[in-house]
Amino acid sequence: MATQRILDFINTRRPNGPCMVLDLEVVRENFHNFEMALPDSKIFYAVKANPAPEILRLLASLGSNFDTASVAEVEMALDAGASADRISFGNTIKKERDIARAFELGIRLFAVDCVEEVEKVARAAPGARVFCRVLTDGAGAEWPLSRKFGCVPAMAVDVLRAAQKLGLESYGVSFHVGSQQTDLAAWDRALGDAKQVFDALAKEGITLKMVNMGGGFPTRYLKDVPTAQAYGQAIFQSLSKHFGNRLPETIIEPGRGMVGNAGVIKAEVVLVSKKADNDNVRWVYLDIGKFGGLAETMDEAIRYQITTPRDGDRSEPCVLAGPTCDSADVMYEKNPYPLPISLTIGDEVLIEGTGAYTTTYSAVAFNGFEPLRSYVI
Amino acid sequence: MATQRILDFINTRRPNGPCMVLDLEVVRENFHNFEMALPDSKIFYAVKANPAPEILRLLASLGSNFDTASVAEVEMALDAGASADRISFGNTIKKERDIARAFELGIRLFAVDCVEEVEKVARAAPGARVFCRVLTDGAGAEWPLSRKFGCVPAMAVDVLRAAQKLGLESYGVSFHVGSQQTDLAAWDRALGDAKQVFDALAKEGITLKMVNMGGGFPTRYLKDVPTAQAYGQAIFQSLSKHFGNRLPETIIEPGRGMVGNAGVIKAEVVLVSKKADNDNVRWVYLDIGKFGGLAETMDEAIRYQITTPRDGDRSEPCVLAGPTCDSADVMYEKNPYPLPISLTIGDEVLIEGTGAYTTTYSAVAFNGFEPLRSYVI
Repeated sequence: MATQRILDFINTRRPNGPCMVLDLEVVRENFHNFEMALPDSKIFYAVKANPAPEILRLLASLGSNFDTASVAEVEMALDAGASADRISFGNTIKKERDIARAFELGIRLFAVDCVEEVEKVARAAPGARVFCRVLTDGAGAEWPLSRKFGCVPAMAVDVLRAAQKLGLESYGVSFHVGSQQTDLAAWDRALGDAKQVFDALAKEGITLKMVNMGGGFPTRYLKDVPTAQAYGQAIFQSLSKHFGNRLPETIIEPGRGMVGNAGVIKAEVVLVSKKADNDNVRWVYLDIGKFGGLAETMDEAIRYQITTPRDGDRSEPCVLAGPTCDSADVMYEKNPYPLPISLTIGDEVLIEGTGAYTTTYSAVAFNGFEPLRSYVI
Repeated sequence: MATQRILDFINTRRPNGPCMVLDLEVVRENFHNFEMALPDSKIFYAVKANPAPEILRLLASLGSNFDTASVAEVEMALDAGASADRISFGNTIKKERDIARAFELGIRLFAVDCVEEVEKVARAAPGARVFCRVLTDGAGAEWPLSRKFGCVPAMAVDVLRAAQKLGLESYGVSFHVGSQQTDLAAWDRALGDAKQVFDALAKEGITLKMVNMGGGFPTRYLKDVPTAQAYGQAIFQSLSKHFGNRLPETIIEPGRGMVGNAGVIKAEVVLVSKKADNDNVRWVYLDIGKFGGLAETMDEAIRYQITTPRDGDRSEPCVLAGPTCDSADVMYEKNPYPLPISLTIGDEVLIEGTGAYTTTYSAVAFNGFEPLRSYVI
């Protein structure tokens, strides 16, 4: 999946050490695909997926909005040229002083999932719009969501009622179907829940206007995934089914889907060895691992596609591990990874589809290794 | 466990945001305890546990040696005042150019666990000393080691024979019984394995001189752990049992045991909420989580002691989570953590025993949050 531009960059610049190289042209294409797939939805790019200034500037120039997780991300989006009305503070867990700072910077759209958070927003961002996140079950997602964010739909009604009473504008409902979600029906279930909240509040005279359908749009790792267009059609059908001809304003928050397939990590084979002379298990150690940017291999959740200079030679499964002195720094062991048996110390490999959730996850200095370098071209 | 100096620092300086505060006096005390417990062993501090320059300078001045995982850590130890002969390059996974760089800097002691690594050391660090790491089963450790490092004892014989043939000095054997190891018998089993390797090579005329007994010395989190003295006695008995009156030179590599209990993380309660009105599960969100330095809560492995201003009030278990928009950023959920029911948004809590494996694990910028700040006092 590495583009020719990325391959040329790596071959010409020969960067030393592991690095992530991301092709902005792929981001541009992804943005247009989302626009075409869901022409009536506003796109809020999830900055946390990759906050590289070049990406934010490109998306700001294309008209994207931005979903942010912290004041620092709000500032990055503003620096990239987005006006404050194009930025949402989408983290449901915020310090009151951070809400106040975002409000000062002009932000007027905040996520909440409980009355306690509504109270903070009402004090620190009077009159702002809030949307309440509802829980979804996350079935079908590769990186499941647990119950950390959101509340049950019945409680969302209470939360938004409280917001309205405290002088906020109860603006809508959000959900997230789980990252890397390949089950198109997941959106349908969540939209049905959202409609319930709309209806319950309408009976009390509170008119919600917006459904934030979150992210979850997958990037292609090893398996084929539905196209943005397939998502768009399925989502539009569900919206019509639940909301009829009174469609709400909708938002989507692609992160991985916007940048995941635009980036590639270049890594190096540091060691290939076995643990005993008569052992069948081959260990392959790279110069990047779980603490150098591949945090999403935790529990072997995300399985990246790896390209080697020896592809085509006979392959055998191996345990794939990182370079640190930490025994937890192993990417694939329970489900070993097939790689060419001819793979040799010093070989350069490409870990594909690593444009999202890599550079910022990287440990700041674990084992003395520097954070993952990033080149946006 | 926070010392009065740490409490005074936090109360006087009022640092904003989460931070780790570490008391050097505790490190000094730990160093002396290790010295007294194992007077015949050389102490090689595992720099990766916490490479703060103040810690390295103190330990260098006390006469400590240093176990390093990368060229950057070698340079930090040199900068702190350690001479090259007091530094070991203890990572078994090294790029050949990093071995060469360390050799240039004067390093003459390298870890290996396979012939492929021996070949690199022989080319890049001719004549250097090597020790071979053998696998242990890790039973009894809280942070188990998997099979990432080391080889079986029979293969260690082959590895060290190859080293000698390639002009290196086959110097000894190392093992690591697993971090936070509370089973004193674990050292005995590993020392028995080491002796086997000594004996097999002696028959071929190769005399090993050193046993590197690694780290694994625990710091106190919630459970009581044996004292350094208890470890010392048990280890000395095992050494005598296996090696008789021809005791080898020994090395220990404490990391967590040297700095873990010297540090405390100050954090803030950002939100306390439930997911449904009739829910019994309380969620407590802090301004630090798995990606902000508490990586070792992965799989709920390490359970830190948490002190709150409301201790003494009635407690109930809660799910404890971090501040990022990542659903995996949950510290304790399967095994919920008891905290006072009166705990309130804005409360400051202390996460005790966090001097090791926190600051450097911290993500460089995930969700826009800055890495964990560190104050060494």
